[in-house]
Amino acid sequence: MANGVNLGIVGATGQVGAVMRRLLEERAFPIASIRFFASARSAGSTISFRGEEITVEDAATADPSGLDIALFSAGATGSRAQAPRFAAAGATVIDNSSAWRMDPDVPLVVSEVNPHAIDEATKGIIANPNCTTMAAMPVLKVLHEEAGLERLIVSTYQAVSGSGLAGARELATQVRTAVQDENLLQLVHDGSAVTMPAPTIYQRPIAFDVVPLAGSIVDDGSNETDEEKKLRNESRKILELPDLLVSGTCVRVPVFTGHSLSINAEFARDITPERATELLADAPGVELADIPTPLEAAGKDPSFVGRIRADLSAPENKGIALFISNDNLRKGAALNAVQIAELVAAKLGNAARA
Amino acid sequence: MANGVNLGIVGATGQVGAVMRRLLEERAFPIASIRFFASARSAGSTISFRGEEITVEDAATADPSGLDIALFSAGATGSRAQAPRFAAAGATVIDNSSAWRMDPDVPLVVSEVNPHAIDEATKGIIANPNCTTMAAMPVLKVLHEEAGLERLIVSTYQAVSGSGLAGARELATQVRTAVQDENLLQLVHDGSAVTMPAPTIYQRPIAFDVVPLAGSIVDDGSNETDEEKKLRNESRKILELPDLLVSGTCVRVPVFTGHSLSINAEFARDITPERATELLADAPGVELADIPTPLEAAGKDPSFVGRIRADLSAPENKGIALFISNDNLRKGAALNAVQIAELVAAKLGNAARA
Repeated sequence: MANGVNLGIVGATGQVGAVMRRLLEERAFPIASIRFFASARSAGSTISFRGEEITVEDAATADPSGLDIALFSAGATGSRAQAPRFAAAGATVIDNSSAWRMDPDVPLVVSEVNPHAIDEATKGIIANPNCTTMAAMPVLKVLHEEAGLERLIVSTYQAVSGSGLAGARELATQVRTAVQDENLLQLVHDGSAVTMPAPTIYQRPIAFDVVPLAGSIVDDGSNETDEEKKLRNESRKILELPDLLVSGTCVRVPVFTGHSLSINAEFARDITPERATELLADAPGVELADIPTPLEAAGKDPSFVGRIRADLSAPENKGIALFISNDNLRKGAALNAVQIAELVAAKLGNAARA
Repeated sequence: MANGVNLGIVGATGQVGAVMRRLLEERAFPIASIRFFASARSAGSTISFRGEEITVEDAATADPSGLDIALFSAGATGSRAQAPRFAAAGATVIDNSSAWRMDPDVPLVVSEVNPHAIDEATKGIIANPNCTTMAAMPVLKVLHEEAGLERLIVSTYQAVSGSGLAGARELATQVRTAVQDENLLQLVHDGSAVTMPAPTIYQRPIAFDVVPLAGSIVDDGSNETDEEKKLRNESRKILELPDLLVSGTCVRVPVFTGHSLSINAEFARDITPERATELLADAPGVELADIPTPLEAAGKDPSFVGRIRADLSAPENKGIALFISNDNLRKGAALNAVQIAELVAAKLGNAARA
């Protein structure tokens, strides 16, 4: 640790992996050495990093010995298979998948919200929240501390890059079809007058459409999606509010990058929109915006929050309505993982100096 | 009335006016004569209707005498100026603008929900609800009758055609720009990497974006938009629930036609998702859908409703979450106006026969 961290990225060739690499190049992250891992299909290819060509290793067979920290963005299946092996070899795994988030021995961390939880990584694994939940946490944390959060009703506007490159390609393909052959002009005059290519990633066309089913319906009779369950369970764990009431409706929209959330939040104690705005102006990881939009949030770090007002359907001074937009690939995935890595690196550094 | 209605359409050349004309041609509406009115700019042009070429008259100067019913889709200003003149000349005005909706002497009617209210048109004017409110009413009416509706939390996904042709053109122009010059490919890899033409209709770009401000902020300190106020006030009037609690967040999305609503509804009495689904299966103007989408709703009449489930953040059996998509130009505007006209025509017919 004297010369920095021996770092690995597992899933380095994916969309989130690429943002992780970009963020590590941008930020003054103390790297002694770096290794890239991916599936067997990508192993052997090279990726340039800080001017060096680095050969991608097969995550399933490579020896993880010597790594201090491994950033995982390899999906839940890949993470379940490999994270324990990397952790057993001594690396602190920071995992972006859903595989470990609800494990009681794995802390679920938003860097601004519950950084102290990294000390509880008894398995050597720290989980990164779902990108939709993540966007809301820095906002809700400060409001909760002020007034005691009791209930959340959330409708989302989720970008296709939440489904990886395949989601973005599906939107692009459908848009190109709609734009051809005067189809777009027909759509302007008659919203039903276009034939889209059959959807493969989503269950309905996503171009010029809205699909109110992000994720998959969970087979427990609730008719909720796994995405809606994650929003409830992860919010409870991160905010340390096991009884928080949450109803989410997770909706995919034709936006490339940037998740948005329309939130009605109810509190135990009084909070006015003026006070909420004041608190959010100073909250870490949060930026006020008159009209937060995913297009403005894309490529930026903060959760942009605006349309802050009283929820006039709640008891007086007990409800706040607001809208959040955040880059789902940066803070929603890669950035928070890198920020956790920075917290872990600082801790390793302190330990080495002690 | 023996040979049908002497009908006028004011705003016949607009987007909603065009749908009104198409619906009148499709449906067996009893027309004795038809006249088209528009602004001075369009007056003198001709429109073909049921094989006849009809010259458009200037709404401001034409003599409305002899009309039984006048369908208005001429904006609030045009309606305020002309509706009383048409009503004074003996026509029953059915107005699609916001001008008269909250007037206590003007009934606000959804044909399946409160058809009886047409008898209260003491000013000779009947108002057509806002398209966003309209989509929800046939759904909420039957749930209210079962369980006593108390509170609504709504987030919307509103199509650009809610802003007329200009909104649809703005989306089309921005999409064409994004698709050019490999910009779209850049967007796939980096959501921030495209320069859109400056927005004129909306306050932010709408292509590949979401704008959480539909309408304009009302100058009363609430930070709500007029669209959000309409949702509250019109729902209360149509459902005859003056104390209904409503919090709306009205959001524009890059969809050409079809408004959608994510709704959390709370009730005084017990209602399960199974019972709600059963009621909605039989509700007039409603069709069940696994995944309601605006693209599927466009060009069709019903409010498509799906994702029906318990609101797990509400007391047990007191909350329902659901998602609605509906064609904002048809039921949301032109169709409901024509349906009201059919109710009025039947009443005139009965009166003539009596």
